[in-house]
Amino acid sequence: MISTTETGQKKGQATKNQTKRVFQFADAFKAFDGNRGTMREALGGKGAGLAEMTASGVNVPPGITVITASCREYSNNGQSMPQGLMEEIKQELSLIEAKVGRKLGDAEKPLLISVRSGAKFSMPGMMDTILNLGLNEKTVASLAKMTGNKRFAWDSYRRFIQMYASVVLELSKDKFEDLIEDKKDELGITLDTEFTAEQLEELANEFKQLVKKVSGKPFPENTDEQLALAVEAVFKSWNNSRAIYYRNLNKIDHNLGTAVNIQAMVFGNMDDTSATGVCFTRNPSTGEKTLYGEYLVNAQGEDVVAGTRTPKKISEMGKEMPKVYEELIATAAKLESHYRDMQDIEFTVEQGKLYLLQTRTGKRTAAAAVKVACDLASEKIINKNEALGRVEPLQLNQLLLPSFDFEDKDKAKKSGRHLATGLNASPGAAIGEIVFDPNESESLSKQGRKVILVRVETCPDDIHGIVPAQGVVTSRGGMTSHAAVVARGMGKPCVAGCESFKVDLQKQEVQVAGTNQILRKGEIISIDGSTGEIFKGAIKTQDPNLSKEFGTLLQWADEVRKLGVRANADTPDDAKVARQFGAAGIGLCRTEHMFMSQERLPVVQQMIMAANDSDRALALAKLLPMQKEDFIGIFKAMEGLPVTIRLLDPPLHEFLPKLSELIAQVATLRATSPKSPELKAKETLLRKVEELHESNPMMGLRGCRLGLLYPDISKMQVQAIFEAAVALKKDGKNVHPEIMIPLVGHVNELKVARTELEQVAKDVMQREQTTVDYKFGTMIEIPRACLTADEIAEHAEFFSFGTNDLTQMTFGYSRDDAEGKFLQRYMEGIDCLGEKQKILNENPFEVLDRNGVGKLMKIAVEQGLKARPDLKLGICGEHGGEPSSIAFAHQIGLSYVSCSPYRVPVARLAAAQAILDISEKDK
Amino acid sequence: MISTTETGQKKGQATKNQTKRVFQFADAFKAFDGNRGTMREALGGKGAGLAEMTASGVNVPPGITVITASCREYSNNGQSMPQGLMEEIKQELSLIEAKVGRKLGDAEKPLLISVRSGAKFSMPGMMDTILNLGLNEKTVASLAKMTGNKRFAWDSYRRFIQMYASVVLELSKDKFEDLIEDKKDELGITLDTEFTAEQLEELANEFKQLVKKVSGKPFPENTDEQLALAVEAVFKSWNNSRAIYYRNLNKIDHNLGTAVNIQAMVFGNMDDTSATGVCFTRNPSTGEKTLYGEYLVNAQGEDVVAGTRTPKKISEMGKEMPKVYEELIATAAKLESHYRDMQDIEFTVEQGKLYLLQTRTGKRTAAAAVKVACDLASEKIINKNEALGRVEPLQLNQLLLPSFDFEDKDKAKKSGRHLATGLNASPGAAIGEIVFDPNESESLSKQGRKVILVRVETCPDDIHGIVPAQGVVTSRGGMTSHAAVVARGMGKPCVAGCESFKVDLQKQEVQVAGTNQILRKGEIISIDGSTGEIFKGAIKTQDPNLSKEFGTLLQWADEVRKLGVRANADTPDDAKVARQFGAAGIGLCRTEHMFMSQERLPVVQQMIMAANDSDRALALAKLLPMQKEDFIGIFKAMEGLPVTIRLLDPPLHEFLPKLSELIAQVATLRATSPKSPELKAKETLLRKVEELHESNPMMGLRGCRLGLLYPDISKMQVQAIFEAAVALKKDGKNVHPEIMIPLVGHVNELKVARTELEQVAKDVMQREQTTVDYKFGTMIEIPRACLTADEIAEHAEFFSFGTNDLTQMTFGYSRDDAEGKFLQRYMEGIDCLGEKQKILNENPFEVLDRNGVGKLMKIAVEQGLKARPDLKLGICGEHGGEPSSIAFAHQIGLSYVSCSPYRVPVARLAAAQAILDISEKDK
Repeated sequence: MISTTETGQKKGQATKNQTKRVFQFADAFKAFDGNRGTMREALGGKGAGLAEMTASGVNVPPGITVITASCREYSNNGQSMPQGLMEEIKQELSLIEAKVGRKLGDAEKPLLISVRSGAKFSMPGMMDTILNLGLNEKTVASLAKMTGNKRFAWDSYRRFIQMYASVVLELSKDKFEDLIEDKKDELGITLDTEFTAEQLEELANEFKQLVKKVSGKPFPENTDEQLALAVEAVFKSWNNSRAIYYRNLNKIDHNLGTAVNIQAMVFGNMDDTSATGVCFTRNPSTGEKTLYGEYLVNAQGEDVVAGTRTPKKISEMGKEMPKVYEELIATAAKLESHYRDMQDIEFTVEQGKLYLLQTRTGKRTAAAAVKVACDLASEKIINKNEALGRVEPLQLNQLLLPSFDFEDKDKAKKSGRHLATGLNASPGAAIGEIVFDPNESESLSKQGRKVILVRVETCPDDIHGIVPAQGVVTSRGGMTSHAAVVARGMGKPCVAGCESFKVDLQKQEVQVAGTNQILRKGEIISIDGSTGEIFKGAIKTQDPNLSKEFGTLLQWADEVRKLGVRANADTPDDAKVARQFGAAGIGLCRTEHMFMSQERLPVVQQMIMAANDSDRALALAKLLPMQKEDFIGIFKAMEGLPVTIRLLDPPLHEFLPKLSELIAQVATLRATSPKSPELKAKETLLRKVEELHESNPMMGLRGCRLGLLYPDISKMQVQAIFEAAVALKKDGKNVHPEIMIPLVGHVNELKVARTELEQVAKDVMQREQTTVDYKFGTMIEIPRACLTADEIAEHAEFFSFGTNDLTQMTFGYSRDDAEGKFLQRYMEGIDCLGEKQKILNENPFEVLDRNGVGKLMKIAVEQGLKARPDLKLGICGEHGGEPSSIAFAHQIGLSYVSCSPYRVPVARLAAAQAILDISEKDK
Repeated sequence: MISTTETGQKKGQATKNQTKRVFQFADAFKAFDGNRGTMREALGGKGAGLAEMTASGVNVPPGITVITASCREYSNNGQSMPQGLMEEIKQELSLIEAKVGRKLGDAEKPLLISVRSGAKFSMPGMMDTILNLGLNEKTVASLAKMTGNKRFAWDSYRRFIQMYASVVLELSKDKFEDLIEDKKDELGITLDTEFTAEQLEELANEFKQLVKKVSGKPFPENTDEQLALAVEAVFKSWNNSRAIYYRNLNKIDHNLGTAVNIQAMVFGNMDDTSATGVCFTRNPSTGEKTLYGEYLVNAQGEDVVAGTRTPKKISEMGKEMPKVYEELIATAAKLESHYRDMQDIEFTVEQGKLYLLQTRTGKRTAAAAVKVACDLASEKIINKNEALGRVEPLQLNQLLLPSFDFEDKDKAKKSGRHLATGLNASPGAAIGEIVFDPNESESLSKQGRKVILVRVETCPDDIHGIVPAQGVVTSRGGMTSHAAVVARGMGKPCVAGCESFKVDLQKQEVQVAGTNQILRKGEIISIDGSTGEIFKGAIKTQDPNLSKEFGTLLQWADEVRKLGVRANADTPDDAKVARQFGAAGIGLCRTEHMFMSQERLPVVQQMIMAANDSDRALALAKLLPMQKEDFIGIFKAMEGLPVTIRLLDPPLHEFLPKLSELIAQVATLRATSPKSPELKAKETLLRKVEELHESNPMMGLRGCRLGLLYPDISKMQVQAIFEAAVALKKDGKNVHPEIMIPLVGHVNELKVARTELEQVAKDVMQREQTTVDYKFGTMIEIPRACLTADEIAEHAEFFSFGTNDLTQMTFGYSRDDAEGKFLQRYMEGIDCLGEKQKILNENPFEVLDRNGVGKLMKIAVEQGLKARPDLKLGICGEHGGEPSSIAFAHQIGLSYVSCSPYRVPVARLAAAQAILDISEKDK
């Protein structure tokens, strides 16, 4: 009897099935009104699957399922078979026998069956499968005759005995293995495949003798007995120790019980009208609507796997077995329309009759995912919204970048060419010869050679070497290190913080830790910025190729989504790319990158080193026209769209040489040429760098703090922004600058900075007699800003959450330090009384931490909107391009996300999915 | 007419005073039922004060006050005198005339009066004072006769003319000054005091001629006219431009108006039965109940100030004017019982009659504040709770430490011996000779010499030089720099981050920036750790001396307060001091300081440099008994009380030499002795230091992160704690260790660390067959911990807010960087459109930021208590010893505060005041 709680909500159905314990595959789906949940509970996952596949109208070898409640009854009754259950099974089985025209135990036309367990949740540890139940002295001969393959028949029989003895009779496997080994020794062979039919027959008989000897009873010849014991064995296996352990570990209810699936065996090796195969209903690589797979005539599934015969392409079946092939095509269509997705199927043809053994959702490439989703929607199998849900947003990223050929990369791995794995700092595939020197990167690239720049870490001085390189590798630094940020901005592959690369810049070589390999200048390597892997030699790449469907899908996404999508872009080129990918403006333009270009850095350094105000003013005056040109370019590329410009953010020492290098240089010069003018110059520089040095620069003199203490810099920037905007406005172009003041933690910082800077803006507009539509706002990246957002909103027209820094401060993690030093260990797990316990499931710099950082954001949104109901709210940290974080941004009511140009398509799709998720939850 | 809104709540009173515009000082207090608020509004601050002083029963020169409403009437009536007002003034003045037996304008017995403005709020910019109104050709002669001092009479007259002309007649002051200068030139003198009576008479006549010439009218001889014009001038001055500007600046209502105070003049220079003086009703230095002050016979107030005659001690008055002295003592008693506090008074004796001119609450030293408060309570003038409110908690700190003699320090300042001011990192006064080398500090101190250690910054290696020094000065580092923290822990004066001290350790000298002074080794300096000041040479100090009243007051505080007070103490000595000062346990025992002592550091370094697990285990085994001894000492000192021990918190590189020093050393060695074994050793060390180096160590591998990655260290610590506890328990001593796991930001960090460590504790207790009462808890110092406090409380029996770090993360301020680089500027103000605007009013590391950090704390308290209602809540950041932060801790419901031992008395008093504040608000 099934208790009502387990058979689901519908009362009528519960009553209908109340006394039925055994269901035909063919009836079950209807009996449970197609309710997948109820079916899973009553029939187990496997049984429900078989029922549904049968109901989809395809030909499945017939069979029956004994419901899970019977297993519970068995357990609760002190492990005794429920009364009348075997009779009910026999009764239903007789219908199967009638259907296939064979009978269990029949000498002429024996029915062979498989018996499988199948609980609600997939559960290793329980009894799995017994194949070919029904074989005995008599039926084995019939099998030999039917398949014309005596060896196959006896091999099946000895396997059945072996499996049955171990699983049902609970005899040790070892003794059977010993017998096989003895036989091999005796015959002087080494492989199972070398046994002849006769030798296998001998083995089967020896197995049976062994069973009798060990268990004291002969191996059951009676097929009913075989079946009864097998069903009981499945029930028993629910409570074996491995199953209990697994359920404890995975918190699965011990009271669920397992179903038993009994299914007719079919044989693809009967004759030349029989076959076996696997195929996808569409091409899983391209998504094209055509069967894709392979088959073997007169063969069993194992033959495909064993690789002893070469399978044929599925399309050849059209010539060889045209009728079956037609049926297979029709079956594919039926399955797709039932399951509403591309399927990966296993089938067998027995004497011209097609049987489906298994179907499941087919895995596919990103390109295929996009095409299949769009095609299914065009074919009206799914609707547009469902199509949007069928593509994992991050997959889209792959489509925009070259990637390594999967097989060739796999081959490289298998042949030991994998060198090391660092952080996947900027996605994409790159191949080139190693160079260590940025100048050399530049000169070799000019000669048309492809190079990978390998450094300990990079700095602004190296930009000219990064730009022409195919990719960048650093041995130090995290996901926000200079190399990583710059490479992502350029869409250039980068592997950062690869600590096992011991880079020796002087010797111009890399020692690969844990190996005795040394890589020298000029050696070819392949780097995968999407995974962080580095390989020796070249790996084949695939170019990106954006399909028509790519555009269609994103257009559908745009129709659905509420969240705006902007890009983080610092140059006119970035801005153009972003706009091509559908960005509706710039959410973060980092002006510091403008300061770091090769020709400007000396001017910036001159400004920093200025001994007095007038020297500083001189340097700033040189920077002004450069900045103005930058903004003109960006505004043009984003004409008509808003451009959020963040004023200078990093601490000034980032524009000067590194302290440690200067200390070493000065110490060396003091020891070698104490009177040189070079020493004097270096000492002056060192003093300035020491003066600017900070213990924790991340929390030091940067952002608006810098702007408040050195207002001339931000004033120059605002002047450049407005002079650029006014110039374009006069040209009839529409520009919408949004000035973003970074790192505000106290409302007064914003109030004072804004007051001072807005005056500069007004002065420019008045002088030029032209007004521009502009906004002032702030980056919300300090916990205190979230907590006092109501005060801050009084002085900001927009908030943009800088979740990189906000995550750093909220967790107290310096990203550069944490990723290398402990975050990895936190995610892998820490020993706790001998067991590994994960501290974090995800890297909070990749996936927004809703519980902590998210809580602060919610506070900020609520308080901000309370103070200023039309406040614009965005996010411009890296989370702006990560789907689960985008969903959260949508949930808490942000207006837009901003991400790197190459993530814009990802964000568009994720934003649409965020809506769909919510409407699903509303159901 | 007074509008009811301004005369306060009591209707009857409003009606009673409704038509009265002029009040006698003697009647006003009663007329307003002693309601100070109403009096201030109607009579102005000065008038209300005079009324109250008169009402207290002391003899005040009689006078009248014209109410503020008359000024409003004057303004609202187009600046015309309210009808009948002058008549009313004259009427009331006649009563004064009767009282003193003199009449305004009377040739024989002229009454002289002063006329003063006086609004509700003290307001510079308005007319201040006219003295000696009533003088004219006739009365000046009478004044000369009465005082027997013709020079005084004419000097008073010419001053009256000058002031009246300028203030009432609005003539320029310059011309009068010109006349004085001309006269001096003519006579060949330079000082005003050199004028004779006759010359002053000439000057007065010249002044009058000038008035006539410039104004076209003669200077008024008629004293009624003098008075009428003066009253109107006061009314007018309410609306002069300076007054309006001041009210705008201070947001004072322009409609309040000013009162006019008209008071009889008294003369201390009438004869030898007259005098003038100032005195405190108790000794403001010691609090002793005896008059303290000075006086001059036959003199005006100016004579005391001018310093031409030396005043006598007030006690001598007992012999010279015994009756007046007795009256003065009685007056002091009356004033104290009325004002309920020690008073600072000005008085004049006119022909044997004592007049009180002014009284105000007397300023006092910390010692006096304590004694006066206790004595007033014993004398039943105030109650105990009021006594608790009379002492500023931070003052108590002074009593525990030597301090500089106020006068001597003042002298040093005036004589240019002030050298520089750094951060007041650890309070107290110290004098000693400069040493730069910690070894020298140690050796010289052993010889009995007193030294001040001066360094760029200190590190653990310097401890042996800090311990024996009188005080420490560093030129770099903030309030939490090594020097500051160590010095505070020891109660040793320290001035940190004194940037104008350019310390050259090689030359062993300090160049004082902005001066051309060079300080060399051996030079004596005096440092004031309470103010950050540094002086050349020695300044007299005063030793601390704890009075009986100090104990009494704190006992009263203990009776009232709810908050527990614990101490931050790292050594048995600290613990003993803390207990003496009344700490109820240790709230923070920082174990890292135990690692930094001279003999242990090498072992700690050995542990860090260990190449493998067994080497590390060896070093840890050496540390174990040392740690155990530490804890035994601390537990003994705190027997019966809880001791919260924080496991190792700082990043490991803090125990190794500094990276920058090593880089320089290695570079030098490479250039000079490239093959030396020393270079090899330094290179190894450098590699380790580089490996441990972090960009932002404050947010790096420290706290529980360190404990999780290197569990052996914390396990050793917990083993030491429990072995110590068990050993004492076996000795019959009660110990209550509380293990605090620092820097938790995610519940899993705490969960895993606690599980692992609690097992160690249990193992020790089981092995030793002794159980100890213990708790596990965490420091709440990461914003995310506050936001997820409910989860964390599941695994913590206590929270201790580490508000130093919490403030750092919430603001995103690295304290070491911020205090030197921008916090000071934030508090001083930033230019904003030409005006200075403060960004912060207070340093959030000193006074807890309630709006931001406090909001996080409230969230944590609420969520923590929800998850665990008996959660113990404390605060152990430096705010735990700061009164306003203690009040906040009380408000949000913490159980205790923990502060440095020398702050314990401060905290006890502040905790009591927190209660009193709240109950006051409840009223």
